[in-house]
Amino acid sequence: MFIRFITTGGTIDKIYFDATSQYEVGESHVKHILSEGLVNFDYDLVPMFQKDSLEITDENRQALKEFIENDDASLYVITHGTDTMVETAAKLSSISGKTVILTGSLSPARFKTTDAIFNIGMAVAAVQSVEPGVYLVMNGQVFAEGEVCKNSSANRFEKIGESGSGT
Amino acid sequence: MFIRFITTGGTIDKIYFDATSQYEVGESHVKHILSEGLVNFDYDLVPMFQKDSLEITDENRQALKEFIENDDASLYVITHGTDTMVETAAKLSSISGKTVILTGSLSPARFKTTDAIFNIGMAVAAVQSVEPGVYLVMNGQVFAEGEVCKNSSANRFEKIGESGSGT
Amino acid sequence: MFIRFITTGGTIDKIYFDATSQYEVGESHVKHILSEGLVNFDYDLVPMFQKDSLEITDENRQALKEFIENDDASLYVITHGTDTMVETAAKLSSISGKTVILTGSLSPARFKTTDAIFNIGMAVAAVQSVEPGVYLVMNGQVFAEGEVCKNSSANRFEKIGESGSGT
Amino acid sequence: MFIRFITTGGTIDKIYFDATSQYEVGESHVKHILSEGLVNFDYDLVPMFQKDSLEITDENRQALKEFIENDDASLYVITHGTDTMVETAAKLSSISGKTVILTGSLSPARFKTTDAIFNIGMAVAAVQSVEPGVYLVMNGQVFAEGEVCKNSSANRFEKIGESGSGT
Repeated sequence: MFIRFITTGGTIDKIYFDATSQYEVGESHVKHILSEGLVNFDYDLVPMFQKDSLEITDENRQALKEFIENDDASLYVITHGTDTMVETAAKLSSISGKTVILTGSLSPARFKTTDAIFNIGMAVAAVQSVEPGVYLVMNGQVFAEGEVCKNSSANRFEKIGESGSGT
Repeated sequence: MFIRFITTGGTIDKIYFDATSQYEVGESHVKHILSEGLVNFDYDLVPMFQKDSLEITDENRQALKEFIENDDASLYVITHGTDTMVETAAKLSSISGKTVILTGSLSPARFKTTDAIFNIGMAVAAVQSVEPGVYLVMNGQVFAEGEVCKNSSANRFEKIGESGSGT
Repeated sequence: MFIRFITTGGTIDKIYFDATSQYEVGESHVKHILSEGLVNFDYDLVPMFQKDSLEITDENRQALKEFIENDDASLYVITHGTDTMVETAAKLSSISGKTVILTGSLSPARFKTTDAIFNIGMAVAAVQSVEPGVYLVMNGQVFAEGEVCKNSSANRFEKIGESGSGT
Repeated sequence: MFIRFITTGGTIDKIYFDATSQYEVGESHVKHILSEGLVNFDYDLVPMFQKDSLEITDENRQALKEFIENDDASLYVITHGTDTMVETAAKLSSISGKTVILTGSLSPARFKTTDAIFNIGMAVAAVQSVEPGVYLVMNGQVFAEGEVCKNSSANRFEKIGESGSGT
């Protein structure tokens, strides 16, 4: 089994520089998480961009889609900011014959308390278990692309229509 | 979605009592891990027994099997010691119409560095993604029951026949 | 032995709210750190204010000084933001007959990797070991008030004149 | 300022080998803790032995004492198992003109929840603040050699005579 991990930034990789009192997106924590998870499969890690997901452009999404289409792997885990993860999933939905899991975290991987490790674990299990297609993995659930939204007020991902409060 | 978690002891729940300098199996860390994972589904947690898996008897396994067969849930995650996880999976393999994931960890959940969080994340994704049946989730992989063994010298789980060193 | 802890905000207590993508100062982590440190002495914790230290005013400092002068304890540990810790120490330097240790951290206590636990441990040892007076404890060192500055470019505290680059 | 750290084993450096289900004393975590503490002083680390403190012999203590007496540093922090820390302190008490702090932890430094970081922080502050002599730093307190015992039933260090239950 081979999994290609692609990092695009987002909360999961945010770090904090004291001098500026600004959060910025840092080097990915994914490799460290896989090492702690004692994973025993082949993988590599492609840092595509390092952005807050509100700043990801259509050009970025197009480039991401073309990268995957032209690449020779069949299993992908993409770490991504939560605010536009749904939009990126929609953009990637026309990719055929490959399994693509998007995930991220609601608190940074560098925090003592974080959902990042759990979510990367979920993504790794999902990518080898589901049918080819595009999926989101967050909040303990594996969502097919198109059936999920971020409920911003509750700060979590939900099936569309489930709580009535998604946007 | 509803998941029933069953804890049976093992390294994942080991704790250390200074007075005796002995590791003993403590209260399960699973609830804490699910809380950090910000999971948004219904679940409960059944503490079945708290044993080093070398001490799990045939009677214990039979009781576990009957509990699941007579229970009304369809998705199960069982935490279990690694030394006899394969044996317990074999015993449960005749359960039909339910999805059962066994997992655990090679270092205790209470350690700073542990595979427990990653593995529970994997199990949660697997239980909702695979066809009904019995599976083991360890070392970044989702194994079907019957195709996996613990390679004790390398201290990891592998597909049977893959490394030639499994026992 | 009785120690009065006073919290005033700063990086040590910063938390991160995803909705606004802003760091804000949260409830103090000091009690949690003392609990992990298995301390066996009497103490209490006074939350004085919760501010980035650049926003601490002369009135705030005067109030802090008067609180300590009129209070009946003799040992104090104050957690404080790093940017104006030196200024607050100077303001408190005229307090007599009491031991006052200022500390904080360069990365938040809620991070996996943080100097907060180490620094609180240092402050607790210093407050019971030094002569009455005002001290800063940061970067592994116990500085007397008046001999220390923050070297902002190196992001650490140093003895005045030591590196030539302090400001 | 220069501090010589000497490691002798004990709970603080215990690690867990799954194969044997035995705790054994591993490579010291002290360097890692100092790095997280962002310390800015010169130091080195001498691994003297790696033992459960119940196994430290009189010959070991004599060797430790002679090492310090013949060494050119003046500030020492020794990490040590808790069960015989008091005995080792007594043995070292005749060293003159040097400051020696013994510390350790009641739960291993590799645990998520541990007093190790706090205690090393305390030791670093104490060694530069107290008069030359031999001290124990545990449970939030700086004890002079000769006035402290381990209360085994409460699993903590106390001033002799304080609780009536020491020894």
